[in-house]
Amino acid sequence: MRHSAIYPGSFDPLTLGHMDLIERASHIFDQVIVAVGVNSRKRTVFNADERIAMVKASVKGMKNVKVDSFNGLLVEYARSKKIHVILRGLRAFSDFEYEFQMALANRKMAPEIEMIFLMPKETFSYISSSTVREIAERGGDISQFVPQPVKLVIDKKWKG
Amino acid sequence: MRHSAIYPGSFDPLTLGHMDLIERASHIFDQVIVAVGVNSRKRTVFNADERIAMVKASVKGMKNVKVDSFNGLLVEYARSKKIHVILRGLRAFSDFEYEFQMALANRKMAPEIEMIFLMPKETFSYISSSTVREIAERGGDISQFVPQPVKLVIDKKWKG
Amino acid sequence: MRHSAIYPGSFDPLTLGHMDLIERASHIFDQVIVAVGVNSRKRTVFNADERIAMVKASVKGMKNVKVDSFNGLLVEYARSKKIHVILRGLRAFSDFEYEFQMALANRKMAPEIEMIFLMPKETFSYISSSTVREIAERGGDISQFVPQPVKLVIDKKWKG
Amino acid sequence: MRHSAIYPGSFDPLTLGHMDLIERASHIFDQVIVAVGVNSRKRTVFNADERIAMVKASVKGMKNVKVDSFNGLLVEYARSKKIHVILRGLRAFSDFEYEFQMALANRKMAPEIEMIFLMPKETFSYISSSTVREIAERGGDISQFVPQPVKLVIDKKWKG
Amino acid sequence: MRHSAIYPGSFDPLTLGHMDLIERASHIFDQVIVAVGVNSRKRTVFNADERIAMVKASVKGMKNVKVDSFNGLLVEYARSKKIHVILRGLRAFSDFEYEFQMALANRKMAPEIEMIFLMPKETFSYISSSTVREIAERGGDISQFVPQPVKLVIDKKWKG
Amino acid sequence: MRHSAIYPGSFDPLTLGHMDLIERASHIFDQVIVAVGVNSRKRTVFNADERIAMVKASVKGMKNVKVDSFNGLLVEYARSKKIHVILRGLRAFSDFEYEFQMALANRKMAPEIEMIFLMPKETFSYISSSTVREIAERGGDISQFVPQPVKLVIDKKWKG
Repeated sequence: MRHSAIYPGSFDPLTLGHMDLIERASHIFDQVIVAVGVNSRKRTVFNADERIAMVKASVKGMKNVKVDSFNGLLVEYARSKKIHVILRGLRAFSDFEYEFQMALANRKMAPEIEMIFLMPKETFSYISSSTVREIAERGGDISQFVPQPVKLVIDKKWKG
Repeated sequence: MRHSAIYPGSFDPLTLGHMDLIERASHIFDQVIVAVGVNSRKRTVFNADERIAMVKASVKGMKNVKVDSFNGLLVEYARSKKIHVILRGLRAFSDFEYEFQMALANRKMAPEIEMIFLMPKETFSYISSSTVREIAERGGDISQFVPQPVKLVIDKKWKG
Repeated sequence: MRHSAIYPGSFDPLTLGHMDLIERASHIFDQVIVAVGVNSRKRTVFNADERIAMVKASVKGMKNVKVDSFNGLLVEYARSKKIHVILRGLRAFSDFEYEFQMALANRKMAPEIEMIFLMPKETFSYISSSTVREIAERGGDISQFVPQPVKLVIDKKWKG
Repeated sequence: MRHSAIYPGSFDPLTLGHMDLIERASHIFDQVIVAVGVNSRKRTVFNADERIAMVKASVKGMKNVKVDSFNGLLVEYARSKKIHVILRGLRAFSDFEYEFQMALANRKMAPEIEMIFLMPKETFSYISSSTVREIAERGGDISQFVPQPVKLVIDKKWKG
Repeated sequence: MRHSAIYPGSFDPLTLGHMDLIERASHIFDQVIVAVGVNSRKRTVFNADERIAMVKASVKGMKNVKVDSFNGLLVEYARSKKIHVILRGLRAFSDFEYEFQMALANRKMAPEIEMIFLMPKETFSYISSSTVREIAERGGDISQFVPQPVKLVIDKKWKG
Repeated sequence: MRHSAIYPGSFDPLTLGHMDLIERASHIFDQVIVAVGVNSRKRTVFNADERIAMVKASVKGMKNVKVDSFNGLLVEYARSKKIHVILRGLRAFSDFEYEFQMALANRKMAPEIEMIFLMPKETFSYISSSTVREIAERGGDISQFVPQPVKLVIDKKWKG
């Protein structure tokens, strides 16, 4: 049996915390699909193409990691891929509560799909996409918080 | 002495979690007034008339439950109704903190009014109006999360 | 219909926070029964008689408040009294989580009994029985934290 | 590659919440080892043999689930089994914080071992071993909270 | 050595909770600089000039308290002032989590700067700028929640 | 004016998290007194002499750090030392809640004394004295969690 997991997110932008989780997941599962949510109603700072490109550039070279995108309900996407494990990171309590509610709602809609949670390295636990955006907008150096390909895109966007 | 309680909210939209709370309250108090907040500055997905109509249709048949609406401060509304018990649901920790702060601010403004808290059935604890909106927007089936009259309105809004 | 509520606890010892809650409850319900848990397996600093006496002395003069004690399951006690409302205070988050779990377990055992929650005055929100015991044990003055009758018992126990 | 996971715990006693988690895990992994911690310094209500027996009786018939016990450090046990995935349940916030700290401490000692987290069915989210013990001690009916084989042992212990 | 601390915030508007903190800080440090963040991208109800004026009017007469404003990164502002202590209030858990993440991100960018935390008087713990805005918008009396100079500005804005 | 702060604790045992805090405090204050609580009623794994000795050995060489011990109420000790700043670390939410309650109770007893809070380096945020004790008891290597002088004492106690 081949074990696959989907790691969904907005990745607006991808951070070193996300990267840490992808790497951990790649050691546990045979295949990890990083699925970028491209819901058109949700406003993001980086558009869908930028976000997908940043993730692709950052995971290049990780053999069992693929990048994909999805629109609509996450559980429908998982079903279409015939994958029943969805992976999420738990950085802090506020994550926990939101994840808990979504996990239970998803389970109601798709009982065969299981959400599992991993904890990132503690040195990344305080890095969220919104913190990165806030620091970048104010002209701060975000090179310690994001992978190099993301830094290049951010530099272009805010400073270019 | 007749015991009445006000159950205020945006109900944007009403969920099965709200319904569960209304039912519990109707067993504790002689009268329960479901008070739909219609503050014009607050942006809601459903307008005031839609929200009031959905609540009315859903509580039809519950004898000691009335539906009303209010604008402005909740404590002023309660005073105008001469009711000194305000009821709120506590689903999760984030609820708790917000409610705690509002309860204390309200108490400062109206010491004679008491806020009391109930916990919904655990199978509804993960259902919030925002989760319902998110699922509906993405085309998911929300029939397990809202009363039938709400489902009809939602289906019309998003699919119609 | 007469509305009664049970306010259960260890009251080891009764604090001003408990007193505040009892007073609030006495304005909402026709009758409030303060029920001192006297489970012999649970170790307390004050024995059952002391705890009951302290509560009785402190609520003397409050007309619709009675003091009782119970052993065994709280929901069985409530059933025996034909009272279906149990009142609890919510001071802080740790309260919330424990109360949440007990409320749901109790509901499973006795679906007809409802637990409702009140918030104490914010100036009492930091006073717990364990804080009072800790301060008293170290020789601190606890007169700002407990009713006068409790202070007398404590002074006797630790200083006498 | 064969995917195995260890599900460690005191199981003092095993609850339906634990059972739910074991079942979920058995759908995700090729093999699940339920590992009963038998640290002699930790005081439990049920002794090691009782706890192991209750787990064994309860998982009988689940093909890819094995029961084992361990003493000492969990990460050393996992290493000795050559399994690098440890599974834990997240019922509530207090779980989360403790688990978070242990996960990070374990990672420091054994970076190659990953802890992953699952959420139990929401109808079991309020069931903890300590709640079960508390209810049983007070003579309550715990049949809704534990598997049948556990109920038999508890009945014998407290009522027998 | 002279001990200075920066107390940064949006102060949209300044509340009695903020005032309490400023006063406490003024007893601990030789100099306290209240630094109003005037990031043009962040939408506030009161503009930068209004917010600075309200703070100035409210701290008038406190000898070792100065008011200043800053744009961009807080840590860069602190560096430019050669002050390495930043002060923040902790009212509640949600504060705590956000502050925790910002403190750690700031430390990464400026390891020589330390964030320290104070707790406001418990009677102000429920007062946040957003609660004040919400009450004012609905026509409530906010005189118990803000200093007099702030009340005058708010009255003018909403009622004027 | 000379700025001093007391950093109280059980230090049962001192961890690298405590050390990190002491170092941070030594950069903010002119003098830091590490005050080991030696309340005879509180059961600790290491006795008062052992705990004081471990702290002394670990802070040797830090010029503006002194080690002392106290019995009874912390605020009385601070008063006797004429120091009105008490320093505490905030590692996680459970810390926060307990600290919050103690800070408010202390403030009631000694309004002139202020408690301030610092956050340890995130790589130490998961290290608590109880985690260290638990790992040591099970034979784990605690050299990554405690200063060298503490490791020596622990090794002697558990392995010697």
